[in-house]
Amino acid sequence: MTVIEPAAMIDLDTVADLAAQLRVDSVRSSTSAGSGHPTSSMSAADLLATLLTRHLRYDWDEPRLPVNDHLIFSKGHASPLLYSVFKAAGVVSEDELLNGYRRFGQRLEGHPTPVLPWVDVATGSLGQGLPDGVGVALAGRYLDRLPYRVWVLCGDSELAEGSIWEAFDKASYYQLSNLIVLADINRLGQRGQTDLGWDLEQYQRRMQGFGARVLTVDGHDLAAIDQAMAAAASPSGTQPTVILARTVKGRGFTEVENKDDWHGKPFPPDMAERAIAELGGIRNIVLRGPRPEPAEPGPVPDLPTTIPQQLGTRAEPSTAPPEYEVGEKVATRKAYGDALVALGARDDRVVVLDGEVSNSTYATEFRQAYPERYFEMFIAEQQLVAASTGIAVRGYRTFASTFAAFFTRAYDFIRMGAISGADLRLAGSHAGVEIGADGPSQMALEDLAMMRAVHGSTVLYPSDGTSTVALVDTMAATPGISYLRTTRGSYPGLYPAGEKFPLGGSKLVRSTAQDQVTLVGAGVTLHEALRAADILAGDGITARVIDCYCVKPVDAETLAAAVTATGGRIVVAEDHHPEGGLGSAVADALLAAGGQELHFTHLAVRQMPGSGSGEELLAWAGIDADHIAAAARHLVGG
Amino acid sequence: MTVIEPAAMIDLDTVADLAAQLRVDSVRSSTSAGSGHPTSSMSAADLLATLLTRHLRYDWDEPRLPVNDHLIFSKGHASPLLYSVFKAAGVVSEDELLNGYRRFGQRLEGHPTPVLPWVDVATGSLGQGLPDGVGVALAGRYLDRLPYRVWVLCGDSELAEGSIWEAFDKASYYQLSNLIVLADINRLGQRGQTDLGWDLEQYQRRMQGFGARVLTVDGHDLAAIDQAMAAAASPSGTQPTVILARTVKGRGFTEVENKDDWHGKPFPPDMAERAIAELGGIRNIVLRGPRPEPAEPGPVPDLPTTIPQQLGTRAEPSTAPPEYEVGEKVATRKAYGDALVALGARDDRVVVLDGEVSNSTYATEFRQAYPERYFEMFIAEQQLVAASTGIAVRGYRTFASTFAAFFTRAYDFIRMGAISGADLRLAGSHAGVEIGADGPSQMALEDLAMMRAVHGSTVLYPSDGTSTVALVDTMAATPGISYLRTTRGSYPGLYPAGEKFPLGGSKLVRSTAQDQVTLVGAGVTLHEALRAADILAGDGITARVIDCYCVKPVDAETLAAAVTATGGRIVVAEDHHPEGGLGSAVADALLAAGGQELHFTHLAVRQMPGSGSGEELLAWAGIDADHIAAAARHLVGG
Repeated sequence: MTVIEPAAMIDLDTVADLAAQLRVDSVRSSTSAGSGHPTSSMSAADLLATLLTRHLRYDWDEPRLPVNDHLIFSKGHASPLLYSVFKAAGVVSEDELLNGYRRFGQRLEGHPTPVLPWVDVATGSLGQGLPDGVGVALAGRYLDRLPYRVWVLCGDSELAEGSIWEAFDKASYYQLSNLIVLADINRLGQRGQTDLGWDLEQYQRRMQGFGARVLTVDGHDLAAIDQAMAAAASPSGTQPTVILARTVKGRGFTEVENKDDWHGKPFPPDMAERAIAELGGIRNIVLRGPRPEPAEPGPVPDLPTTIPQQLGTRAEPSTAPPEYEVGEKVATRKAYGDALVALGARDDRVVVLDGEVSNSTYATEFRQAYPERYFEMFIAEQQLVAASTGIAVRGYRTFASTFAAFFTRAYDFIRMGAISGADLRLAGSHAGVEIGADGPSQMALEDLAMMRAVHGSTVLYPSDGTSTVALVDTMAATPGISYLRTTRGSYPGLYPAGEKFPLGGSKLVRSTAQDQVTLVGAGVTLHEALRAADILAGDGITARVIDCYCVKPVDAETLAAAVTATGGRIVVAEDHHPEGGLGSAVADALLAAGGQELHFTHLAVRQMPGSGSGEELLAWAGIDADHIAAAARHLVGG
Repeated sequence: MTVIEPAAMIDLDTVADLAAQLRVDSVRSSTSAGSGHPTSSMSAADLLATLLTRHLRYDWDEPRLPVNDHLIFSKGHASPLLYSVFKAAGVVSEDELLNGYRRFGQRLEGHPTPVLPWVDVATGSLGQGLPDGVGVALAGRYLDRLPYRVWVLCGDSELAEGSIWEAFDKASYYQLSNLIVLADINRLGQRGQTDLGWDLEQYQRRMQGFGARVLTVDGHDLAAIDQAMAAAASPSGTQPTVILARTVKGRGFTEVENKDDWHGKPFPPDMAERAIAELGGIRNIVLRGPRPEPAEPGPVPDLPTTIPQQLGTRAEPSTAPPEYEVGEKVATRKAYGDALVALGARDDRVVVLDGEVSNSTYATEFRQAYPERYFEMFIAEQQLVAASTGIAVRGYRTFASTFAAFFTRAYDFIRMGAISGADLRLAGSHAGVEIGADGPSQMALEDLAMMRAVHGSTVLYPSDGTSTVALVDTMAATPGISYLRTTRGSYPGLYPAGEKFPLGGSKLVRSTAQDQVTLVGAGVTLHEALRAADILAGDGITARVIDCYCVKPVDAETLAAAVTATGGRIVVAEDHHPEGGLGSAVADALLAAGGQELHFTHLAVRQMPGSGSGEELLAWAGIDADHIAAAARHLVGG
């Protein structure tokens, strides 16, 4: 294979040839696979041919080069086009394109994932690639401070997702002139016309209203596209740019152009043959566009002015982890903030984001210490997680926080983060009924279930300051999605400073050889379990108490041993709905261990809470010390 | 208590008095509770005083009157203001306001919920009240066809949520001139200035870009507010209206006006005293504004033209449920569409919504049969669920569908729907690795965990056409959040037409008195379990097979009996991640039943899938017939 690497700019005739090739290859790959989205690929082929040859600064031999531009297909279903681009760049072979696409065990998946080295993030759930791209562009402008650009191909259907507008809002707020959106307005969604159709003026008004510079083009006029891309890539300016392209779905094959009912359907072989013929036949052009110039990080730009900065006044934070006394009352959310500051002092790749509640999650402590590594995402939890994902693409260790309940807003982004193989560290505060007066809308009661079900996730739930500090450090070193659940109220410290909390471990907080029942808690219910053990001791019942600070992976060995030692009797209490949380984790582990009859009592929040004090609600839910003691007494007596 | 019900319009001097009262009562209620958001209430008091007295058409004695206007506090944290409005209308007493707010067992919760008869939907997770209001307004315009208006109070912080823009998009698309947004732009969020601050022009550009009519006012100028509300409430027009109000947080109490660090904090008693004094002291005005005129439903308006309608050509759908033969291959998603049509013929309050994938979920069948009761939400899953919630407020039975994976996008809305006590019927298609080539972004592998963890939810997972039809009917009669998981591929019918599938039940599909092991499946894994039983029979092992079509509430009795009959041996296979799904439901039920040692093998999707055929991926995940048979063989042999 000979790769053409032109010294001069590739001319538009060659670009036109390449565009035809991309269409042909999109047809061939999807027909060969028997599924896929050729028509959605064909509408954007001219945009991509122009980009690849003349504007994308990318070293295809070194996809991890820091100065490379980034290319994200937010419309992930146009994967035939993306893979055809890879073939044109000479990094994917014709054989792989025709025999690997959408096949078992192959890397050219139905929607792009970072299994491929040229893919930053998994897409395919619409409206996510652009928010992710905002994260990459944030890293480019504020952290890497390198002149790379982030090019994002969006479909028009996905512009109906609110997350797209969260992305535009943040892109303009953070002045991401390094972000360029290619909006492929082909009018047709999956089952008919999109809500705005070809009303490009309305799209333009919306995008401009959200602070973007909009360049409207005929998406099949190569010269116009080229001119717009050149303008978009100019380094000056403070606005993100949209190249708003009027395109035709299925462009290049008249049988399907602009026709309904051709979304997500490969052409049958006879149609594919006609399409290829109309497009001028099979080509095997391999070429590459400009490579990035070497560059050094520029100066640190100012963050937008509505975020007060205290760069001039701050003291140098200590690298030593914060320490709390045993018995000292501290909220785990406060310990989270303290721990972040120390971690940030030791590791300058730690970056923190929050969803406008940093004074509640205590992420504000990090913001005060390192304003240049803190990004305020305002009340936009989808963008909060997506920005974390995008920043992580550039190798930073992101921590994102909001109320635990509001991570439900971003569940699709967390799920896709797992598919991206992203290392995301999420911290949710104000868990459970313990929060009290604010009521159920603010109470996370599904978060453990949600986070446990994410592939490869780690779920942590500390009960005191010392364990929180240790677990924040653990998160920094943990790949994949990790989640820390913190508590609103302050509770006494249980462990001396410096105590270790290994991943997959637990703590026997109270244990004798004569224990009659095992009590398992985490967070606030661990404190209730300890009080329950005291109550039971008054009744002459000795209880073993386990701090299950690691909900996933759960400490199956310690749990099974404890249950064996206590006659199969176990009470698990959690400030969470009964499904999928701590009780479920313990149940799964004990059932997998097998080997004994279990007497398992699971205390959880089984009714809809209202307002009240934390104590009232813990009692009402039946997860306080009295209820744990009663459940244990019943098991021991029975 | 004397209620002033003026024959004539209440004058603006009285409105000003009332506004002061609303502020005073917001201060008093939050100070008495020791928590709450007085300053966020005070910024909007003039808007609400004007609305209550002169524009909201509402019969406070009959909150369910169909012609009543609707009032939704999207900024639910301004609950002190809302409850002060209720006091002013004479439906909440001073005693309840001062001693009930945010207290245990009381109905004036920290954020409003429909525990109160004048509250339509729970709010408090920001950016949801407006999308819900779009649903109510859709019902008003297209279903009830009554002249009521939907007034939604939004805060400025929540305008950063993408869901707000999904709502504006749909409000303008569906020409909801009956929707009026009061945008309380007080500049300050929880921890500082919002991203747009007081840049009202930028808000205006965004809202106008999304098709709204925007009337900008000084939010403390009663005459200007009154004029804008009169204009907004004029019946003509096709646009939603925004009254974009520049306001001051904490307005009326100079110590806190427009100051940082006063979000979500009640005033200490001494400050509260000074605030009340500055506001002119305690008042106890009780008054009511205009009542709605009686009205009959108007003509059915045309739906927007981009959705093809087939009103003129459709045949009258049959009310008889669809029937499938045993052994006939049908996809459960297809049966869902068929069942909806028959249900719609029997019940004209059934309304269907879909997120631009109706040709995949088969909701399109309902659209073709009853276009006037179908709402296309395009690719905006948050608004899909919110619109369902809002339409359900008006007593319709909504069914909302998209790919099961994409309901993760709307998890916060589903969670809040449960707090609203809404009856939401959700149907997610394309579950699990079974979908094959499209890859992991399109595979629901967390949905069962997510839906089971919702309070009061019902989770259904049929394996054939007959059971799907029965379960769709069950959903129509089931309160709360119900979820139906459907499968992409077609599998043979297992049950004769008309078979019953009670809620909380299961089916013994294969059973003898000599069974050695229990196999549990649902959806595609039931078919695999049946094949496994055949394989095992070849080895001389008899297996009991249970169709666990009701994942929540699960049939604990049948499961426990089966496990007892088969020596404690059970294999559960599911096309879902191992956490929180079918296996977890079965495990929870068996542990709660207790009384025997269990030999429990749980087969689930434990690695990150890629593309492939459904068969390849079921085998790869270890959840196909061969793996189920091997697991059972191991248990029986062990």
